[in-house]
Amino acid sequence: MSENLVYLDNAASTRVDDRVIEAMKPYLVDTYAVATSDFAYSLGIDAKEGLEQAREDIAKQMNISPQEFIFTSGGTESSNLALKGVAEAQKENGNHIIISKIEDFPVLKSAEALEKKGFEVTKLDVDDKGSVDIEQLKNEVRDDTILTSIQHANQEIGTVQDIETISEICQDENVIFHTDATHTFTRIPLNFGNLPIDLATISSHTIHGPKGIGGLYIKEGTPIQKRMDGGFQENNLRAGVENIPGAVGFAKATELVTQDENERLKDMRDALIESVLSDISATTLNGPRQDRTPQNANITFHYVEGESITLHLDMRGFAVSTGSACFSKSLEASHVILGMGGDHERAHGSVRFSFGRFNGMEDVEKIVESISEVVEDLREISPLGEEE
Amino acid sequence: MSENLVYLDNAASTRVDDRVIEAMKPYLVDTYAVATSDFAYSLGIDAKEGLEQAREDIAKQMNISPQEFIFTSGGTESSNLALKGVAEAQKENGNHIIISKIEDFPVLKSAEALEKKGFEVTKLDVDDKGSVDIEQLKNEVRDDTILTSIQHANQEIGTVQDIETISEICQDENVIFHTDATHTFTRIPLNFGNLPIDLATISSHTIHGPKGIGGLYIKEGTPIQKRMDGGFQENNLRAGVENIPGAVGFAKATELVTQDENERLKDMRDALIESVLSDISATTLNGPRQDRTPQNANITFHYVEGESITLHLDMRGFAVSTGSACFSKSLEASHVILGMGGDHERAHGSVRFSFGRFNGMEDVEKIVESISEVVEDLREISPLGEEE
Repeated sequence: MSENLVYLDNAASTRVDDRVIEAMKPYLVDTYAVATSDFAYSLGIDAKEGLEQAREDIAKQMNISPQEFIFTSGGTESSNLALKGVAEAQKENGNHIIISKIEDFPVLKSAEALEKKGFEVTKLDVDDKGSVDIEQLKNEVRDDTILTSIQHANQEIGTVQDIETISEICQDENVIFHTDATHTFTRIPLNFGNLPIDLATISSHTIHGPKGIGGLYIKEGTPIQKRMDGGFQENNLRAGVENIPGAVGFAKATELVTQDENERLKDMRDALIESVLSDISATTLNGPRQDRTPQNANITFHYVEGESITLHLDMRGFAVSTGSACFSKSLEASHVILGMGGDHERAHGSVRFSFGRFNGMEDVEKIVESISEVVEDLREISPLGEEE
Repeated sequence: MSENLVYLDNAASTRVDDRVIEAMKPYLVDTYAVATSDFAYSLGIDAKEGLEQAREDIAKQMNISPQEFIFTSGGTESSNLALKGVAEAQKENGNHIIISKIEDFPVLKSAEALEKKGFEVTKLDVDDKGSVDIEQLKNEVRDDTILTSIQHANQEIGTVQDIETISEICQDENVIFHTDATHTFTRIPLNFGNLPIDLATISSHTIHGPKGIGGLYIKEGTPIQKRMDGGFQENNLRAGVENIPGAVGFAKATELVTQDENERLKDMRDALIESVLSDISATTLNGPRQDRTPQNANITFHYVEGESITLHLDMRGFAVSTGSACFSKSLEASHVILGMGGDHERAHGSVRFSFGRFNGMEDVEKIVESISEVVEDLREISPLGEEE
């Protein structure tokens, strides 16, 4: 079964592109030296050049300077460094941090860890589509606010935030601004260099690049405390022997995403949303109809459990995931759906569909047919019952 | 030139073995799902099984339980987590930490970062071969000592420490003990499970595995504070989407190291040391003659700069590195050579040779010939002059 499984899950974007693997190979078997020293033999310098070229390519895509970009082990590390590193460096100036209620776990849990250390954290409300309450942001900013972190788009429901406005408010108030752009980088344009964004988290495995590599944009002059001590790598902000094959693969993955591909993802997303909402009764789209990431659809199938749908679709050869439990070992309800004002029933019936490069429109047709059948079957035996 | 370069540097062990790449491939292109959820589709479970098998293989090699081993992004992260995580978790019990003077940067700089946060750090002396002063350890342990971190072997001079005795002293004194085994894992047997070792750092890129992956042994019950917040991965001790290809590659690299290979490395090391010391005047072996890692030789060529030797050998097709500057962007003298009581002249004239799987005895013969010529040439023009 496995080999025919159609991914319509975040894993749809985690299949490493063959061209990425080809780009990485030379740095695994030929130019494999450690890149650290400036005073070393020639092949170490070649390896370093590969690393710096990767940095330059990604920086160019972000419209920032290469010196403002560091590689990390992934988006989680990037967001931890952004929040904790800035909080530590700024603690003399205040102890108030603002995030949204629906941030992904790396930001949410980093903020909560800082809360335990004496920082105060305000979690902004979102409306019923998942949009951050911008008036509330303006009201909550205080003299002792040192950092605001608002995601570019949501990991579960795809809602895109108005980062232009949010970052400008932060700039006006003299508050450092971080955005978690894990789910939008290369998918939705964001001019990191021109906007008053101070830090941004990006990741490789969400765009068919390798796992174990990510990055953090740190605008020049941003106060930040190093968290990984050791060598002087990554502009002396992140110690550790550089994962050069990973960095090169990440840069290649970045290069391979095209506007055409993003349009194609959007078409598949829209076809799925339209078919499901029109063909299957008692369904609710989570997040906005338009301002969402091109790859994401998230739909609640009322009166059934998302986990049951997942299991039944798996048996039919489709890999989807529930909105909840994505990062969790528990079956707790999604903090995102609850954060939008959804109840537990809505949260537990939600299913996330996420398209990748290797999906096609035929996958959409096939899965809509399967979901219709699965949901109908499950509703017949559902203890939740329809309220009619 | 590059393609013919003979590595006799730490990079000698960073060429990823083709069999490692083959083992990783399925997890890049087929079983590429995210492994996190226990409530997911079948291929996510297959991916998770790959991860857990890798964990089991490495744990078995260490004679520990798989639940006691977590994957990290490398040795640097492991040592940071060990020192800072234990210090944070134990700070109510005391604030004194013991390390040696010659620890590698991840331990050294983590300890110094803790010092800035109010912890007190004692750096134990080493003798002229780099062995930690065990009597001093006994004397320095106090009621408020919460952690001792002593490396298994040194990164520059290869000196192997008596971890059996050191860990037992810590156990007797009720002090948590961490060892950085980056340069010995699979090369020198250490029974992590049977000795009173509480934490141990290991790394993949030092044994022909991929960069960007490492591990930390955390004995069950060891108090430790998570440092990377987000998801519940890695026994809830290290958040972030798992680098499964990296973990699988690391496990394969571990499996591929054999006792025969270690004997072969030792033979090359011994041949190099003997030839250089007998053929070239004014040379000093740094570290002990026998109790050193099988892959490492470190020799001071008096009256010349190590960096000059490196450059000239590079032009002749050999990649070696100086003892100093390995992690540094500066040309500062090696804290290891200075820590052993060596002076700046000795530190700056030191060269590290490190053998890997893809070296052969013919490399030894060729390099000894080249070094003889290079050192002779350099001494003729040396401003340092021989004291004769």
